[in-house]
Amino acid sequence: MTLRVRKPPVGAAPGTLVMDPEALSSVVRVFSYDEDTLEENESVGVEEIGELRTVGRKLWVDVQGLGDERLMRQLAESFSIHPLALEDVVHVRVRPKAEPYEQNLLIVTRMLRQGHGDPLDVEQVSLLIGRDYVLTFQETYGDVLDPVRRRLKVQNSRIRSHSSDYLGYVILDTIIDAYYPLVERVGDRLEILEERVLSEASPETLRELNSMKTLLMKLKRAIVPQREAVNTLVLDDHELLSENVRIHLRDTQDHIVQLAEGVEQARELVNGLMNIYLTVVSNRMNEVMKTLTIVASIFVPLTFMAGIYGMNFANMPELEVSWAYPTLLGAMTLVAIGMVAYFWRKGWIGRR
Amino acid sequence: MTLRVRKPPVGAAPGTLVMDPEALSSVVRVFSYDEDTLEENESVGVEEIGELRTVGRKLWVDVQGLGDERLMRQLAESFSIHPLALEDVVHVRVRPKAEPYEQNLLIVTRMLRQGHGDPLDVEQVSLLIGRDYVLTFQETYGDVLDPVRRRLKVQNSRIRSHSSDYLGYVILDTIIDAYYPLVERVGDRLEILEERVLSEASPETLRELNSMKTLLMKLKRAIVPQREAVNTLVLDDHELLSENVRIHLRDTQDHIVQLAEGVEQARELVNGLMNIYLTVVSNRMNEVMKTLTIVASIFVPLTFMAGIYGMNFANMPELEVSWAYPTLLGAMTLVAIGMVAYFWRKGWIGRR
Amino acid sequence: MTLRVRKPPVGAAPGTLVMDPEALSSVVRVFSYDEDTLEENESVGVEEIGELRTVGRKLWVDVQGLGDERLMRQLAESFSIHPLALEDVVHVRVRPKAEPYEQNLLIVTRMLRQGHGDPLDVEQVSLLIGRDYVLTFQETYGDVLDPVRRRLKVQNSRIRSHSSDYLGYVILDTIIDAYYPLVERVGDRLEILEERVLSEASPETLRELNSMKTLLMKLKRAIVPQREAVNTLVLDDHELLSENVRIHLRDTQDHIVQLAEGVEQARELVNGLMNIYLTVVSNRMNEVMKTLTIVASIFVPLTFMAGIYGMNFANMPELEVSWAYPTLLGAMTLVAIGMVAYFWRKGWIGRR
Amino acid sequence: MTLRVRKPPVGAAPGTLVMDPEALSSVVRVFSYDEDTLEENESVGVEEIGELRTVGRKLWVDVQGLGDERLMRQLAESFSIHPLALEDVVHVRVRPKAEPYEQNLLIVTRMLRQGHGDPLDVEQVSLLIGRDYVLTFQETYGDVLDPVRRRLKVQNSRIRSHSSDYLGYVILDTIIDAYYPLVERVGDRLEILEERVLSEASPETLRELNSMKTLLMKLKRAIVPQREAVNTLVLDDHELLSENVRIHLRDTQDHIVQLAEGVEQARELVNGLMNIYLTVVSNRMNEVMKTLTIVASIFVPLTFMAGIYGMNFANMPELEVSWAYPTLLGAMTLVAIGMVAYFWRKGWIGRR
Amino acid sequence: MTLRVRKPPVGAAPGTLVMDPEALSSVVRVFSYDEDTLEENESVGVEEIGELRTVGRKLWVDVQGLGDERLMRQLAESFSIHPLALEDVVHVRVRPKAEPYEQNLLIVTRMLRQGHGDPLDVEQVSLLIGRDYVLTFQETYGDVLDPVRRRLKVQNSRIRSHSSDYLGYVILDTIIDAYYPLVERVGDRLEILEERVLSEASPETLRELNSMKTLLMKLKRAIVPQREAVNTLVLDDHELLSENVRIHLRDTQDHIVQLAEGVEQARELVNGLMNIYLTVVSNRMNEVMKTLTIVASIFVPLTFMAGIYGMNFANMPELEVSWAYPTLLGAMTLVAIGMVAYFWRKGWIGRR
Repeated sequence: MTLRVRKPPVGAAPGTLVMDPEALSSVVRVFSYDEDTLEENESVGVEEIGELRTVGRKLWVDVQGLGDERLMRQLAESFSIHPLALEDVVHVRVRPKAEPYEQNLLIVTRMLRQGHGDPLDVEQVSLLIGRDYVLTFQETYGDVLDPVRRRLKVQNSRIRSHSSDYLGYVILDTIIDAYYPLVERVGDRLEILEERVLSEASPETLRELNSMKTLLMKLKRAIVPQREAVNTLVLDDHELLSENVRIHLRDTQDHIVQLAEGVEQARELVNGLMNIYLTVVSNRMNEVMKTLTIVASIFVPLTFMAGIYGMNFANMPELEVSWAYPTLLGAMTLVAIGMVAYFWRKGWIGRR
Repeated sequence: MTLRVRKPPVGAAPGTLVMDPEALSSVVRVFSYDEDTLEENESVGVEEIGELRTVGRKLWVDVQGLGDERLMRQLAESFSIHPLALEDVVHVRVRPKAEPYEQNLLIVTRMLRQGHGDPLDVEQVSLLIGRDYVLTFQETYGDVLDPVRRRLKVQNSRIRSHSSDYLGYVILDTIIDAYYPLVERVGDRLEILEERVLSEASPETLRELNSMKTLLMKLKRAIVPQREAVNTLVLDDHELLSENVRIHLRDTQDHIVQLAEGVEQARELVNGLMNIYLTVVSNRMNEVMKTLTIVASIFVPLTFMAGIYGMNFANMPELEVSWAYPTLLGAMTLVAIGMVAYFWRKGWIGRR
Repeated sequence: MTLRVRKPPVGAAPGTLVMDPEALSSVVRVFSYDEDTLEENESVGVEEIGELRTVGRKLWVDVQGLGDERLMRQLAESFSIHPLALEDVVHVRVRPKAEPYEQNLLIVTRMLRQGHGDPLDVEQVSLLIGRDYVLTFQETYGDVLDPVRRRLKVQNSRIRSHSSDYLGYVILDTIIDAYYPLVERVGDRLEILEERVLSEASPETLRELNSMKTLLMKLKRAIVPQREAVNTLVLDDHELLSENVRIHLRDTQDHIVQLAEGVEQARELVNGLMNIYLTVVSNRMNEVMKTLTIVASIFVPLTFMAGIYGMNFANMPELEVSWAYPTLLGAMTLVAIGMVAYFWRKGWIGRR
Repeated sequence: MTLRVRKPPVGAAPGTLVMDPEALSSVVRVFSYDEDTLEENESVGVEEIGELRTVGRKLWVDVQGLGDERLMRQLAESFSIHPLALEDVVHVRVRPKAEPYEQNLLIVTRMLRQGHGDPLDVEQVSLLIGRDYVLTFQETYGDVLDPVRRRLKVQNSRIRSHSSDYLGYVILDTIIDAYYPLVERVGDRLEILEERVLSEASPETLRELNSMKTLLMKLKRAIVPQREAVNTLVLDDHELLSENVRIHLRDTQDHIVQLAEGVEQARELVNGLMNIYLTVVSNRMNEVMKTLTIVASIFVPLTFMAGIYGMNFANMPELEVSWAYPTLLGAMTLVAIGMVAYFWRKGWIGRR
Repeated sequence: MTLRVRKPPVGAAPGTLVMDPEALSSVVRVFSYDEDTLEENESVGVEEIGELRTVGRKLWVDVQGLGDERLMRQLAESFSIHPLALEDVVHVRVRPKAEPYEQNLLIVTRMLRQGHGDPLDVEQVSLLIGRDYVLTFQETYGDVLDPVRRRLKVQNSRIRSHSSDYLGYVILDTIIDAYYPLVERVGDRLEILEERVLSEASPETLRELNSMKTLLMKLKRAIVPQREAVNTLVLDDHELLSENVRIHLRDTQDHIVQLAEGVEQARELVNGLMNIYLTVVSNRMNEVMKTLTIVASIFVPLTFMAGIYGMNFANMPELEVSWAYPTLLGAMTLVAIGMVAYFWRKGWIGRR
């Protein structure tokens, strides 16, 4: 598993806009709406952005792909984005947080998605909530916010009748709700693993438990700072958030606390399963040892007895006695039975 | 064990009432009372709910089964239930909490009941306390609140002479007291398991210890947020709760702290038992190994001695000596005795 | 070990006085005192209690045995005991706490005493401190408070010259100081166990370590909430406690913090001893395995060599050579010496 | 690994300047700047320091090597450095911290650098931020602050246009960003180690895991107090720090929290890898035991059977029967096959 | 290791002066000083103490040995020592703390010194800081405070020019700095132990690791409450402590936090070493098992083959064939080589 931390260019001026050369080129979609009408502009160009704020309606500027420096600077100018906020938006791998600036409120969140292959896609989604606009920044071209778009288009949508902070809340809520299927799937896999640990306990199982642990660590690392961020939003009295939105955020807070607890519980479960794995392995070793001990303890003495009468001494009178051989066989049988009985009484044979 | 978190429909508008298709159909029972009289209406219909608040008496509306959307909407309207509160009531699997709204106070609790089979029934019970009413919402048709009903019917009942927040408190207290038998039973099972671990320590025991741990995790997960919720009620100065009720809630708080400590202690006990289990298993392995070592260490050398004189060399003068055979037998006996003495001195034989 | 939590009658009205049928019948002793005189009344009857408060002197009402409902009700009436406080006094197994009521201050403590047999006696002692009286409630007829009685009887006793909160403090201090011998004894037993673990490490030792752990858990469970309770008394500005008593309570607080730390340290020690136990056991296993390996590795190859020359092939020329037998014996000796040297170099033999 | 704590001369007067005899001789470089001009003086002598403050421009005094007592005293006098602050600057191995003094603000940081060999170079860098100057003190002649120097020299540099606290912030940010490559490298080494644990698990791997743990402990020990220090700077309302710098410090705080989390996560990973190592080792033991058990369990009984017919009894009629020998060989084959089948069914052979 | 808690006489009046019968007789040394002059009186008698305060100069009363009751009472009277403070001074084994009284400030500290033998000497040193005096109380006749005495005697000593709280601070700082050599020595011993664990891992090493753990527990127990005490002094606004002394105390606080972290880190190191010890032991076991398995797996099958041809069947045609014997020896060699190759491929032989 990899440990990833953001690696800013050492010594770069803070607040400098250093673009990630691998970032996708930006696609901007703008929704301008009021209670009655909604206008959607796909692929808005840089030059049009300057005019957006003059529109006099509520705006949602949805930026996907963070590779276009000119665009970013234009947005920063039009929407008074603080240089540090802009830096956080562009440099992905920022710790999730909620940070108030003079004219707007920056919320950095992280999304985890199970991609086509096994590893998790991690994507940073930033929200900038202002008086009459919401800006969202996504690393990749994604469909996470599609449900919000759909709801926005519905006539009489509650989103359109509220101020823009409500839209911000709806987006945040959508992002956080997207963790539920992930945590659920973890629960399902754990259920399967639990059975496997008791029945198989192969090194394969251990490897899977471990990858589970890594996944949960990632989930925790994504969820916990978001919990803190939402906490800040609920408790602090930021002027951009209305009382109504704050009440709704309490609900989001409940969800995220529940998710964090779910992840914590899953971590405990994984640890428990690892312990059981170890016990199962050690029990098996026990069984191996018992088998060896039983076989050896029965046959080693018998072999010795046979060895005695295989010696070539001239003077071994027993050898000549005609009933000696069957007697010895009988004695051997008795020894064997005695051993078996001893092991049975110890509980090593038969009754488990 | 399964890990369960609520899975809201991703992207659903917060506060939207999305009914659970598997929810039971609702049965409403209404108690309207004042100090002197009590009226009980079983199976109140939706249309009658609108008129309830006009009655001018204190009300307890007891809803069992949460499947009736029309009813829920009617209740929400009559009792000014905030959409988010209604959502929490209907979507079971909400984290226990106490949340003040403008006109009432929502308390979400979780009940655990040992059903007929082994697994625990988890049921969410929500309370909504208003100026002159209490609403309770249960997932299933249950009898948890029967003791409250009985006490309400008693003439001169303290419940009837106090305001409705007192009824709310009594219901909450009843719900929390119902955890005691569960925790007690855990204690009893642990006592039995403790003996079993020391005497048997079969994988069966391990499995039971593990299911115990899972049960305790569930209990903890149900109790801890309720402790926080009651804490909030005691500390916050909510206008709907009288000073008298607050003093009584301190008592409930004591109970729930005691329950949480009991669960924590039981968890520690289970962990301790698991450690003992491991030690017992490893002690057993030790005994197995000792047996093998003793048997092999005695007979392997003897077998070698017998092997020597089983060789067919032409020139082995000892073979012809008449006292050689008994001498060898004597030497073998001495070796065996020496080995046994060595093991006895090491403490591997006899004295334990 | 049993896990015990109080099991109140589910659904009983909070504040209802449900007597424990197994409670001992009550014996009341009353000390009325002022700076100069002290009057002691043994076995005061119910009817006399009503008149006590009219006496106009400071009172200590010492109740032993909590089985007399009429008496309790009479006391509650005379000394304005809140129903919830009375419930806590009567229902033993309440969590230790300090709770202010309007007219008095309830302190619930727990005493642990090593009885005649091995298990600990747990007894709840409750204090009710009022303006000019102190009430104490003990579960059994005990002598814990005897030192207080003796000091009270001394002429010029500081207790008699101070107000009744000082008597309350003295009683609390006496109860908490009684934990010292218990913790000391734990320390002594641990010292013995430590030596035993290193020299013997029998399953018996493990069992004792475990019972130690259980004992320490009980001690912790009794001491920690009392620490919180005393904390509350020191920090909160309760009008019934004079500045002087508060300074003295700081001293009691020091004692209880020290006790709690002692218990915590003992728990760490027990855990450490358990780890050493495991290591000692595993070291022993190691020795067992080494013995087996050494014996088998030496004699198994030798036995094979003897086996070779025990074969009956017609054409084995070595057998006829006269020096073959002594040569083989020499070769066997060399092999054995080589093996021993190998094991010695590995450090498995001789030097440890 | 060594545990290092500062060892001040016991009983030395606090605030006494006790020079470290091994400290490098000091080299002072002074930058005096305002928005338009920048003057750089390399190797400023002691006598020139007294005149520096009269210059009337913003100053950065960069001291490398802390061995020159006269210089230190002169600096302390010119820039009103509190004796305790000076002591902290000179005595390296001080815990990182931020401490306000009357006229300036002391920030002690610690740098870790991977030197040429394997062990980490630890260097203390202290900052003293005053109204119009910043003093930095480095233990060795290093190039950590080179990026800051470069940025300072740039015409129109934001540093030159802001007050001196901004320069202080830039230096602090540069120092903290220098941790990123270290934490990244840890992540890379962990990735390699993870594979190694699963494939090899040699004692060498364990040793490396352990040195990793030690490295992480050092990193934690360096980062955590710096997090606290930056926290203090952000929260406390120190008059020397402008609002603008405080906002930028929030960003530094984010970085350091992220670093601390990265280190914590790496510690968890190392612990996880150690557990896997143990499991892999114990699995291997299991395989060793299985091999022994299989071989011994098959051949020991067979050897016994052969031993029987190697006995020399006069009366063993089987020996004379002509088909006895092939029959016995057949029986032996059957026993061997039976054993193999038994082990196969147990899963010890073939299918894994 | 012993667990020690103070055992006050149960039921003794709090604040009663119960002398420890084993306490050393008291020796009092008095320093009276002002900025210019210093007077030192060795072995001051009880009767002279009453007159001390009239001197009108700053005083340091240094009491060594706490066995003289009359002296203690006289001091208490002359310097207005609160009975509880006096009790804390006399009853050693009090938890370190800082406690303000009306006229002075009590600081109880604990010193640990490596005596001549191995075990640590624990000594309680109490400070009582008043307006113009400092009293110190030591259990034994020691030289811990000698550096302070020396500095006091120096003309122009900063101590003499400041008020008495500064002397108090210097004494406290001296006491805490005396922990550094102890913690350093722990670091050195750990370094040695680390190498030993990897090379030897004898039970002796385990025992030393354990005694290390006990020592660290003692250190922690002594340091942590002192950290809390110094914390209190720095934060609380006690009128006896000047601003200047408070700034110096911050420095002491830094030292003690560093010490506490050093101890914590050492504890982690010891735990890590214990884990490595266990791993080394289990690796060794692994090697033992491998040796046994290799030897047995090679020779047991060979012995069986030899056993076959040692049988005495009349009809064993192979026995008569002249090349049978060398063929068998060849077959045996092949089997042995095959086994060795198998083990080599498994990595059990040769390559490690």
